[in-house]
Amino acid sequence: MGVNSNRVEDLPYHGTTIRIPTEAMPPLEIHSVCLPPKQTTFQKLKHRLGEIFFPDNPLHRFKNQTWFTKLLLGLQFFFPIFQWGPEYNVKLLKSDIISGLTIASLAIPQGISYAKLASLPPIVGLYSSFVPPLIYSVLGSSRHLAVGPVSIASLVMGSMLSEAVSSTEEPILYLKLAFTATCFAGLFQASLGLLRLGFIIDFLSKATLIGFMAGASVIVILQQLKGLLGIVHFTTKMQFFSVMSSIFNHRGEWSWQTIVMGFIFLVFLFTTRHISKTKPKLFWVAAAAPLTSVIISTVLVFFLSSKNPHISVIGHLPKGLNPPSSNMLYFNGPFLALAIKTGIITGILSLTEGVAVGRTFAALKNYQVDGNKEMMAIGLMNICGSCSSCYVTTGSFSRSAVNYNAGAKTVVSNIIMAAAVLVTLLFLMPLFYYTPNVILAAIIITAVSGLIDYQAAYRLWKVDKLDFLACMCSFFGVLFISVPLGLAIAAGVSIFKILLHVTRPNTMVLGNIPRTQTFQNLNRYREALRIPSFLILAVEAPIYFANTTYLQERILRWVREEEERIKASNESTLKCIILDMTAVTAIDTSGTDMMFELRKMLDKRSLQLVLANPVGTVMEKLQQSKTLESFGLNGVYLTVGEAVADISSAWKAQP
Amino acid sequence: MGVNSNRVEDLPYHGTTIRIPTEAMPPLEIHSVCLPPKQTTFQKLKHRLGEIFFPDNPLHRFKNQTWFTKLLLGLQFFFPIFQWGPEYNVKLLKSDIISGLTIASLAIPQGISYAKLASLPPIVGLYSSFVPPLIYSVLGSSRHLAVGPVSIASLVMGSMLSEAVSSTEEPILYLKLAFTATCFAGLFQASLGLLRLGFIIDFLSKATLIGFMAGASVIVILQQLKGLLGIVHFTTKMQFFSVMSSIFNHRGEWSWQTIVMGFIFLVFLFTTRHISKTKPKLFWVAAAAPLTSVIISTVLVFFLSSKNPHISVIGHLPKGLNPPSSNMLYFNGPFLALAIKTGIITGILSLTEGVAVGRTFAALKNYQVDGNKEMMAIGLMNICGSCSSCYVTTGSFSRSAVNYNAGAKTVVSNIIMAAAVLVTLLFLMPLFYYTPNVILAAIIITAVSGLIDYQAAYRLWKVDKLDFLACMCSFFGVLFISVPLGLAIAAGVSIFKILLHVTRPNTMVLGNIPRTQTFQNLNRYREALRIPSFLILAVEAPIYFANTTYLQERILRWVREEEERIKASNESTLKCIILDMTAVTAIDTSGTDMMFELRKMLDKRSLQLVLANPVGTVMEKLQQSKTLESFGLNGVYLTVGEAVADISSAWKAQP
Repeated sequence: MGVNSNRVEDLPYHGTTIRIPTEAMPPLEIHSVCLPPKQTTFQKLKHRLGEIFFPDNPLHRFKNQTWFTKLLLGLQFFFPIFQWGPEYNVKLLKSDIISGLTIASLAIPQGISYAKLASLPPIVGLYSSFVPPLIYSVLGSSRHLAVGPVSIASLVMGSMLSEAVSSTEEPILYLKLAFTATCFAGLFQASLGLLRLGFIIDFLSKATLIGFMAGASVIVILQQLKGLLGIVHFTTKMQFFSVMSSIFNHRGEWSWQTIVMGFIFLVFLFTTRHISKTKPKLFWVAAAAPLTSVIISTVLVFFLSSKNPHISVIGHLPKGLNPPSSNMLYFNGPFLALAIKTGIITGILSLTEGVAVGRTFAALKNYQVDGNKEMMAIGLMNICGSCSSCYVTTGSFSRSAVNYNAGAKTVVSNIIMAAAVLVTLLFLMPLFYYTPNVILAAIIITAVSGLIDYQAAYRLWKVDKLDFLACMCSFFGVLFISVPLGLAIAAGVSIFKILLHVTRPNTMVLGNIPRTQTFQNLNRYREALRIPSFLILAVEAPIYFANTTYLQERILRWVREEEERIKASNESTLKCIILDMTAVTAIDTSGTDMMFELRKMLDKRSLQLVLANPVGTVMEKLQQSKTLESFGLNGVYLTVGEAVADISSAWKAQP
Repeated sequence: MGVNSNRVEDLPYHGTTIRIPTEAMPPLEIHSVCLPPKQTTFQKLKHRLGEIFFPDNPLHRFKNQTWFTKLLLGLQFFFPIFQWGPEYNVKLLKSDIISGLTIASLAIPQGISYAKLASLPPIVGLYSSFVPPLIYSVLGSSRHLAVGPVSIASLVMGSMLSEAVSSTEEPILYLKLAFTATCFAGLFQASLGLLRLGFIIDFLSKATLIGFMAGASVIVILQQLKGLLGIVHFTTKMQFFSVMSSIFNHRGEWSWQTIVMGFIFLVFLFTTRHISKTKPKLFWVAAAAPLTSVIISTVLVFFLSSKNPHISVIGHLPKGLNPPSSNMLYFNGPFLALAIKTGIITGILSLTEGVAVGRTFAALKNYQVDGNKEMMAIGLMNICGSCSSCYVTTGSFSRSAVNYNAGAKTVVSNIIMAAAVLVTLLFLMPLFYYTPNVILAAIIITAVSGLIDYQAAYRLWKVDKLDFLACMCSFFGVLFISVPLGLAIAAGVSIFKILLHVTRPNTMVLGNIPRTQTFQNLNRYREALRIPSFLILAVEAPIYFANTTYLQERILRWVREEEERIKASNESTLKCIILDMTAVTAIDTSGTDMMFELRKMLDKRSLQLVLANPVGTVMEKLQQSKTLESFGLNGVYLTVGEAVADISSAWKAQP
């Protein structure tokens, strides 16, 4: 059979054998299949670990440089400020000042609102808009990220801590736990970055996050009905049924004055948002709206307060800079586990948001953000934050978008914003005394309602039903069960999807496209033709323990069905099965055993089994496990076309 | 650019476009890429569910038959006895009697020993060798499976139940729990089969099982030192350290008479096993050895008992058939959860062994065993067993091998074995009074030492380091932690391996093999050549949320490295990147978004990105997500060769 007499173990690493077919077929070169270049286990491990931890090869710029350049590059690597700092100029500064002031006008009301969302004193939200942006501006590599508290992390922290400790009954303990959780979030984030385990956040798929954010937003909006309706007694739980029952069981507390005011400002905020959405140039309309609402409503309440004691207001806020809070970190006691858990979950969520937002805007301006470095920056920012009365912060999507639209050029816009917050903290705090809580509720509702992306969900439904399922699982999980459980379920569904793909891979029958050496799915390409006496099967997955049984059964079923078809149509009998291994990207020991078994079973039925185009690692494993030997000479071909040509010419030679 | 003017959405399902290249290149047909035939969501779901639950299409034989034949086939389907029953003859019976008696001589001493391993009364082991084989002979589809108690399931049951209940202090409760766990094991197994979820056992990979069995065997062997050394007080825990401390803390209890006797018989048993291993025709030597040892040692102890009270014996065993035990099932109370957990774990382990053994021997004789049907048979056998004083049973590897070698032809050999056990139960029980416990220990040690397959572990190390890791995890997990945790860790490592493959897929640069249309890894095929101005990349994994970030970074790094290489070697600039999608077996919404982003990013650098040979489902998703539109005309080719030919001819046309 054939002329290739290389023993399989002695396959040349790089060789071409030209076989002369025995009959008048068009001459076709038959190439032998190479093994990948030999590597020691250590080399393989090194390569593998390199791919896992350093896929972007962050040190490539350090190669072939003098040690001074290396030092400079190192400094730039760890402190990106040294990269853009020297080239900074007045023109850039002008852009940054405009964008910085714009995001400050958004950050101040949002800071106060989000702190309330986390059941923290409003001032903590302002503190968190001051220190972290400064730290990020030194360490961060994104130029457009606007740093500060964000809704999702605030909500999750509030809901998780409130389950155990009441923020109204034990405010000090609650505050301690919040700072501790922030510290753990930072430690977790920084260590993910340091250990280059950033890919962990990739396991929260986009589909999962869409569902999660929508579910969380619905809960938040329902919870804001407290402020919007003026209810005084309200659940602190983040769960659909308890929130709904709180709303309807306290109907007596509804205050029509609050409701009217709330809805007027809601309409105002949504209108401005709509304007900015339809005309991106008018981004400042939406950006300025929250601060405008706060000012107008505060003035309104100030003048009406004597007649209208029904509208609840923020009240006294202390003046002054962030007080140190390192003495408030809580490293032992009954709630430590809770603080760690809250820290990890808020940490992972805020990291996901921050890194995703950073990458989005980097892609728009065509620069790269190093995920792992970004994680270290965000982590350090939270660690420092937890020692200066800040809670979890990250890059906010809405504020970063405003920042980008306002023309921010570098992270200096964050410094400008921090400066504006500083001024507020030092001088303007008393002005917020009469700011009504209802306006904060309206601001939160406007902000989070943008996170409900039903169009994206519809797109998921259209493109990928399993992604849609993951999305729905996280949506309903968050809404009806709890935040961590909802996330866990959604991550589970996403992972299950990967496993399902491997457990039940596609197999298909290929046919030849006339006048080519190309073989394609018979079901998809009507012009593709079966080759008499051959059954060409493609397997579309790695062959792993989880699918060997299935694949063996499925291949035997294909053979059985092909034999039945041939019987029915009186064609020439099946003699050879070619497995196209192009898409079999890996194989494990169960897989090699299966191939061995399959070969033996088909041999007993006098059917030849050959492989076409196994990839390097698969070829290597087949050889190491001695399975290749059982395939013997002529068992492996470079392409399906060569296999067909060589085998049929061998048949003609030996009739 | 090119002549293909089909709008991407209007791609013909089955069409060939012949493009005439603009210059003197050899004419090459350019084929357009087809979408798979349109299917509704329902059709897709039906196909998918069919692949998940009915990969072997068990009903294919029912097609196009009269209703009488269908009824007969149905009866044969559920009761395989109707399949082989009518053709049964005296010749087959002769073979079955010989093999049945052979396995009976093995089953009786093993039954007694394994029951002791599970801390159950020895008689339960004999009961379990009587009822379950009879039920299996009616329902089972394997012809060579020898049914009865097995070491691993006995060990796991004993260790899990002993953690909570002492078999010596509360023997009745312990027995109740054992029967209840058996019942739950049966229910679990039968429902896995009924729901066609048999693929769940595929997640215990061979590598995991090798480690698990070796670890469990080591523990069992160490535990048998109790019997072998004659120790009276011994731990019931299945954990390395507690067993070792039990052995050395009771050195005073060691009895030299027991030790001498034990080692003599151990040597005898191992010698016979060695003989049968080297000469398979002498299988009966090893098969008969346990019963011979029992007889010799019993006689020996009977005569020496007055002088030698140091050797502990089995003692009184009740005569008679299996008493009913359905009244002993325990469906409420504090230990229910334990019984369920034990049932599920022993159920899954015994199922794995039974199905694997059945498949192994079926493959040897070239018949098929339906995994799901087999699960129902084993499950029903255990449910019935739990009502007739039997504990968990399944097909035993060692006894099935003996059965096969002894020439068994059908499951009638199981009936013969059951008959022999029946005779023993009715008449021979008093003879076991003087059987020394040490001989049972020796039999167990001989049996389980065969499960330590260090050669298989070495093979794993050579072929697949991650499989070896999974194997070691389950070995040490079982040895040093606990049976369920060890299994869980090993399953986790196996699943992690799949996820890692998807998270960090291989990407590689392809080159053209001269005088062919084949493109192969440059690193592997030295004759492969780069095509100037092109970078051809192959991605070897589905593009999923878990790897989109990585792939984007990695592809951009390939581009950057290629550009650096070109700069250094003064070649013509890079103009086009071709992604060979042959091995991208699936894509999700994150993946389509990534492709869209990547296209945009490369566009900004004036680099063209085209796809070659996307598989059907990927093509479909790209189209549904409108990503394909962004690739525009000429963005997708059937093969890399056609892409190169068409694009370079387009370049020549527009210099």
